[in-house]
Amino acid sequence: MKQDKVILLSNDDSYRSKGFEAAIEIARRFGRVIAVAPETPQSGMSQAITIHNPLRLNKVREEEGLVVYSLNGTPVDCVKIALDYLFRDEKFDLMISGINHGSNAAVNVMYSGTMGAAIEASFYKIPSIGLSVTDHDPNADFEGAIKYGVKIVESLLNGDVPLPLCLNVNVPNIPCSEIRGIRLARQTRGFWREEFFERTDPHNRKYFWLTGGFENSEPTAQDSDEWALANGYVSVVPVQVDMTAYGQMEQLKGLL
Amino acid sequence: MKQDKVILLSNDDSYRSKGFEAAIEIARRFGRVIAVAPETPQSGMSQAITIHNPLRLNKVREEEGLVVYSLNGTPVDCVKIALDYLFRDEKFDLMISGINHGSNAAVNVMYSGTMGAAIEASFYKIPSIGLSVTDHDPNADFEGAIKYGVKIVESLLNGDVPLPLCLNVNVPNIPCSEIRGIRLARQTRGFWREEFFERTDPHNRKYFWLTGGFENSEPTAQDSDEWALANGYVSVVPVQVDMTAYGQMEQLKGLL
Repeated sequence: MKQDKVILLSNDDSYRSKGFEAAIEIARRFGRVIAVAPETPQSGMSQAITIHNPLRLNKVREEEGLVVYSLNGTPVDCVKIALDYLFRDEKFDLMISGINHGSNAAVNVMYSGTMGAAIEASFYKIPSIGLSVTDHDPNADFEGAIKYGVKIVESLLNGDVPLPLCLNVNVPNIPCSEIRGIRLARQTRGFWREEFFERTDPHNRKYFWLTGGFENSEPTAQDSDEWALANGYVSVVPVQVDMTAYGQMEQLKGLL
Repeated sequence: MKQDKVILLSNDDSYRSKGFEAAIEIARRFGRVIAVAPETPQSGMSQAITIHNPLRLNKVREEEGLVVYSLNGTPVDCVKIALDYLFRDEKFDLMISGINHGSNAAVNVMYSGTMGAAIEASFYKIPSIGLSVTDHDPNADFEGAIKYGVKIVESLLNGDVPLPLCLNVNVPNIPCSEIRGIRLARQTRGFWREEFFERTDPHNRKYFWLTGGFENSEPTAQDSDEWALANGYVSVVPVQVDMTAYGQMEQLKGLL
């Protein structure tokens, strides 16, 4: 493949994360890389945008074929300022968000800043990939995510892709050699239940840390992304944004 | 109707907003009201959760049949701490998020903190309503939203509702007497394009304000929520959270 593509990057772990470097490594194989990433970690920021605060932008790195900006905003802010301000006239071939430290499978797609940025890019008719490994460790192993990320990027850049396109790609936290391949899947049904850890500060005031666990409503569903991950596959879920519950329309017609 | 229900409230404009008082007014007609709302405005916070910061909770109001807590977190944090910590053993009949100052129709459902809270409550099998008026003014007129909000709450409390249920209800910014009724609708296709206003601070550093406008991809679609609002109806869109693009599966099978 000719290395003549233009790739937009963002993430939610900030431009200083190991996963972001891994995403740069993937993208550089295909051409020129333009990145706008958050100044500070923005995990769990979902599709959030910054309305009440001013945004500050800094160019933090520039070398042959790569430029990186940081923004004191959310992942979605980063994509918006890249596409509606900084690089309005650039023609991007692809957008990669990540590589995220932690799973964005199942309903995590809704809370994820990584996926927020990927979804946002798809609104600009740029094929986008949110790429994650199921390991929160700052020093997570990205070998499998790089290998399969490259494969997927290659397929999208060479193929006839439907637009808008946004892929939620998750890579299991196992040695790269043990990954069994790529599996197209649907979003697993389930939800989070939280546990709030209570602490007391030195001024004797209470505060809380939000923690929780995912409850999988269909652990045996072989077409689900959680099943794919649990069985050693890279899961790929195409994402769309029409949240209408069409299946409830008839019943609600009678009710309202 | 007996006033024996228990209603959970939250919003994204903070517990000090006029719209929040309007939501309390609706809810009190049906029974006991428990509210956990953000300490500060959280518009545009989507489904965001607070991972990296401690949460602080304060009881800010208590009177017969009403208690209000404030939390220094997102709308979703508020719902989670209400249902997984403060009131774990309470049986809620309904959740209302709002009343929001500003439209949450179309793709706004994805950016909206109001809808983030409503969607979150639906994960706990509580029928939920995100209620908004299409007017950002802090002093917006909530007469129509209260009238139609009461009607919808009544229908849900008396009816046989499917679960999970989350309704995205938007009320047009016209005099209450001119509202033509309630219209079930689907989420309008479209997206936002932004304009970044550049300013310079007294230290000669640039900063930006994010502003933008919604581009409606189907302005004449009579089954869309934007059409309903433009034609004087209260729009009601049932919301679900499976974001899988099932329609793209076949094409992607050949590609990946």
